[in-house]
Formats: sequence, structure tokens, C-alpha cells
Amino acid sequence: MRSYRKELWFEVKGRREFINITPRVKECLKESGVREGLVLVNAMHITASVFINDDEPGLHQDYDKWLEELAPHEPVNQYRHNVGEDNADAHMKRQVMGREVVVAITEGRLDFGPWEQIFYGEFDGGRKKRVLVKIIGE
Amino acid sequence: MRSYRKELWFEVKGRREFINITPRVKECLKESGVREGLVLVNAMHITASVFINDDEPGLHQDYDKWLEELAPHEPVNQYRHNVGEDNADAHMKRQVMGREVVVAITEGRLDFGPWEQIFYGEFDGGRKKRVLVKIIGE
Amino acid sequence: MRSYRKELWFEVKGRREFINITPRVKECLKESGVREGLVLVNAMHITASVFINDDEPGLHQDYDKWLEELAPHEPVNQYRHNVGEDNADAHMKRQVMGREVVVAITEGRLDFGPWEQIFYGEFDGGRKKRVLVKIIGE
Repeated sequence: MRSYRKELWFEVKGRREFINITPRVKECLKESGVREGLVLVNAMHITASVFINDDEPGLHQDYDKWLEELAPHEPVNQYRHNVGEDNADAHMKRQVMGREVVVAITEGRLDFGPWEQIFYGEFDGGRKKRVLVKIIGE
Repeated sequence: MRSYRKELWFEVKGRREFINITPRVKECLKESGVREGLVLVNAMHITASVFINDDEPGLHQDYDKWLEELAPHEPVNQYRHNVGEDNADAHMKRQVMGREVVVAITEGRLDFGPWEQIFYGEFDGGRKKRVLVKIIGE
Repeated sequence: MRSYRKELWFEVKGRREFINITPRVKECLKESGVREGLVLVNAMHITASVFINDDEPGLHQDYDKWLEELAPHEPVNQYRHNVGEDNADAHMKRQVMGREVVVAITEGRLDFGPWEQIFYGEFDGGRKKRVLVKIIGE
């Protein structure tokens, strides 16, 4: 069994953003040399997500608006977590969108349907944060 | 390490439906010959889910109603994604229910609690769509 | 490839609770002897979650309130599932928080960011329920 590990770093300037990280995960897979196996891609921070969906800007705006409705950022004092913090909403948004994805590797490639793309979802930006790529297989 | 891959195909006539795919995943496991490992079951489309819950029709009706409240299909023009499309709500419903499940394989069986069943959740039917079953182990 | 399996048992007295199970998963990892691989931690029951987030009591209160808003327990007769049951809301809360986490194992340790902790989320307590820990790797 082979294993491979890499951290991908991000620094989002604003509070929220979705970034397509599929090309970077593909590079990891190539570096790993794994032909058959699984790749785990997870946010290493608890106010961010990794998820798979469509690379379509209108949809990303819809997601942002929808998540704000489900778990509004303001007023920040509605959350007990926000004592010296203001990111409780980000902890909730991340649960809706998910922490991680597991993707099959088949014949050396991400085994994806036609529109699947991997995104980093930032909900509390303004500082450096990481995504872990872990590959096992052979 | 062994690996196994199969696509399961579905064509839901209406817009939304939940289908119990546990028997089909069990067949895959049997074909794979894997005794210890992991099985990944994921929707290959971004307006569908694979999730684990109860095979109880009342609950499925509750899920459908609840998801419609969280992310209504109509009016379709409330979503920026819906330019020439009408399925933005399906992209949201799928995030709540999830893209994938990972299930342990122990002694050649799905290592499940008493009521766990695997479902395909369709949120934008009317065409052929796929689920990927990927098994690794030995 | 090595594989390891353990069930963790819980009995929550009230209806809902979040329990940090990170120390118990670390014990499992140590017992397994696996240095590189993946650990799957999943609820074996369909009204409970395993998720990764912050071990902060204010946040857990926020989660509880938020989940009650998204899927209220009462009135119980608003749900079709609740015929001789009263836990339909728990099936919904569990979908938002998730069934499982997959965590990378690197050099014999859970490969975590600075604040990641694993929680058992109970949404329908008052009886014994289980979490599965399955480790594969070498």
C-alpha cells in the first residue's frame, strides 16, 4: 500500500469564498503515483469546508445567500460561541457544506462524473488556512 | 490490496425520489471478494445524494417536505444558477443530504447498525444518472 | 494491509448531547498499530451523528438551538414518521451534522488541524447506541 500526504494552503481576503481546488488535487494524485485507491480531501480548520459540486458562479452566489439565511452572520451576539469571536455562523455553514470528500481513484485518475469539481469553502477568511490531501492505494 | 469499481444507473421519472440501493451495494461487495476494507458509494451527479438512513416511507415524505422548506424549488427565478436551468434547489438539497457514504467492510459484510440502509436521493430526475461503488481492501 | 474494528458504546440520559470521542478514537488507533492509512468513525444508528468541530460549550449550545430551528422536535405530529415514534426530527438533525468522518492517519497519529475534535452527536437519547471505528492501513 502506498500513502501520500500534502497540505494545500489558502488565504482568502474576505470572509467567504469558494475556490476550485480540483487541479491541485489532480497534481497531488499524479505525484502520489497511486493508480487504484481513495483520496481524502478535508478542511483542517473547523470554519471551512471541502465539498464537491458545480463550478458555476451563479450557483456559488446562491449557496452564499442560502447559507446566510440558514445561519446568519449577524447579529453576532445571537450566538453563545461569539465571546471574543464572531464566527459561530461559520461553524454552522461548514456543517451544511461538509468537512471532507472521499473520491475514488481509478486507473490513476479522479473517478468523477461529468460535472464534479472539488471546492474549498471558506466561511471565516482573513488568515492562512489549510486543506489536507491524503491518498492511499497502490 | 484489491480494488473494485461499478457504476449503478438510475432513471427517476419525477423530480425527486429516494431509492434503497443497499441490495445492489451488497452484490458489488460479493463480486469484489473483499473481506476487510472500505466501500465508497457516491453520487456521480451534483444534484443527487447518497446517504444512509431508515427505509421508512413516512420519513422519506418528511425529508422531502423538509428539504423543500430549506431550499424551495419555486419560484425558480429566485436563484442565479437558474439561467436556462431550474435545478438550483437540487444542488442545495444534495448538500444537506450529502454526496457520499463510506462504509466499513468486516468479514465480507457491510458493517452496519440495526437500521442502516443506503439510499440514492434524486433531486432533479427525468434523466439517467449514476452512482459509483468503489471498494478497496483485501 | 492491516484492519482494525471497534465499537464504542454510549448512553445519553437526555434527548440530545455532544460528546468528545477523540481520546477514544486515539486509543483505537494506538491499539491498531496502523501508521499510515484512514480511520472511518461512524454512528451505527440513524438518529445520531459523528462530526468534527470545536470543543467549545457555547458553540454546542448554538448548534443545539440552530438544529431545533431547522428541524423542531415539536409538535411531533408534524412528521409522518412519528407514528408510534417521536424522533423524526432526530433523523433530520443527523443529516445536517453527518453520519461519519474519515480521518487521515499519518505517522501513527490522527492527522488533524489545530482545533479538530471528533464528536458523537446524540439526537434521540435514552438508550444504548454505538459508534463504529474502522481503521485500514499499514
